[in-house]
Amino acid sequence: MREAFHEQLDRIFRDLAAMCGDVETSVRLATEALLRGDAGIAERVISGDVDIDRTRENIEASAFLLLSLQQPVASDLRTVVAALRMVSDLERMGDLSVHVAKIARLRVPNVAVPAPMRPTIERMAEVAEEMVRRVSKVITDRDVEEALALAHADEEMDRLRRTTFAEMLSADWPHGVEAAIDVALLGRYYERIADHAVSVAHRVVFVVTGENPASVGA
Amino acid sequence: MREAFHEQLDRIFRDLAAMCGDVETSVRLATEALLRGDAGIAERVISGDVDIDRTRENIEASAFLLLSLQQPVASDLRTVVAALRMVSDLERMGDLSVHVAKIARLRVPNVAVPAPMRPTIERMAEVAEEMVRRVSKVITDRDVEEALALAHADEEMDRLRRTTFAEMLSADWPHGVEAAIDVALLGRYYERIADHAVSVAHRVVFVVTGENPASVGA
Repeated sequence: MREAFHEQLDRIFRDLAAMCGDVETSVRLATEALLRGDAGIAERVISGDVDIDRTRENIEASAFLLLSLQQPVASDLRTVVAALRMVSDLERMGDLSVHVAKIARLRVPNVAVPAPMRPTIERMAEVAEEMVRRVSKVITDRDVEEALALAHADEEMDRLRRTTFAEMLSADWPHGVEAAIDVALLGRYYERIADHAVSVAHRVVFVVTGENPASVGA
Repeated sequence: MREAFHEQLDRIFRDLAAMCGDVETSVRLATEALLRGDAGIAERVISGDVDIDRTRENIEASAFLLLSLQQPVASDLRTVVAALRMVSDLERMGDLSVHVAKIARLRVPNVAVPAPMRPTIERMAEVAEEMVRRVSKVITDRDVEEALALAHADEEMDRLRRTTFAEMLSADWPHGVEAAIDVALLGRYYERIADHAVSVAHRVVFVVTGENPASVGA
């Protein structure tokens, strides 16, 4: 019984890591659509979100079944509940990449991000994507050290977001209101993807150590 | 045993409704701070968020204990898991009202929202606040009909948000980039508060009917 439980739990974590891989692809393609102004790639991200949603439903159903049939307690219960939360975070990250893709699509054949702003937005996107990639590994390896390290990548994201505001609010922002709104919202979306990545990483810390990251050293 | 379970579950739902009341206050005060440019009220919202976070921790601990000790199955299990999700939604709504308060504080002694934009933002805030108030009742009464009706308030929110974009992108927007970014982000925050309210309402539908709102008629 207990062995069956852990086998099923491992499968849930494998599914979570795979879902995280799909989210990573979604973030990467959304950024590609954004920086190239490519409507076709944007559509792929938008229509692909149903697959991420379906994966979420499947993982939720598995976790629920596990709770129902095996009635885990203590650390096993904690792990299943954490998995249910991780799946919500991952789904939101998928939604946020759809928001990025929708801004890209809205501005086709133009590119939403003005040329001088591209390096900053590109770096934000890279940080977000890299965090998602690292979270996949954190889930697979239940690597607490790497999970705690992820919070620092989040600091770079905060810094980049402040940079975008400083540039847009400088006296010589020549790109108008529309581009400023796009960049502000894009910054928000990438920042939230990063926040959710940190949140997933923290849940892994909780699963492994039984404590919240604040007490472990994050 | 079963009676004790339902007593504890009822207490969790009462706590959720009370937390929802705190979130409502937070949204209302954040809006007041925003429209008056009042730093003191903004500070109250920002510092008050720790109480909402603490309530979340307490509710999570109670729900977790309930799962551990009583090992509910079927609809009881579903209800406890739904409560865990509702508490996450409510906490995020609190965070979002903090974001509104922070924009208010950043612009003091000015008001972040330009005068001609105030009616639209004020209405968005009203819709959000009203949705939070209605969700409190939905939680208390487990009222499926009211929960399903909430999705329509969300439609007004979408319309209002489109109105803000149309105004800001019109040729004669005289308020500059900073105000446009503020209004775009404020719109996003109120919209997300509304989304989370709908999400909480849907979880109540799921608790009561055992089905997701899409199949019940939302």
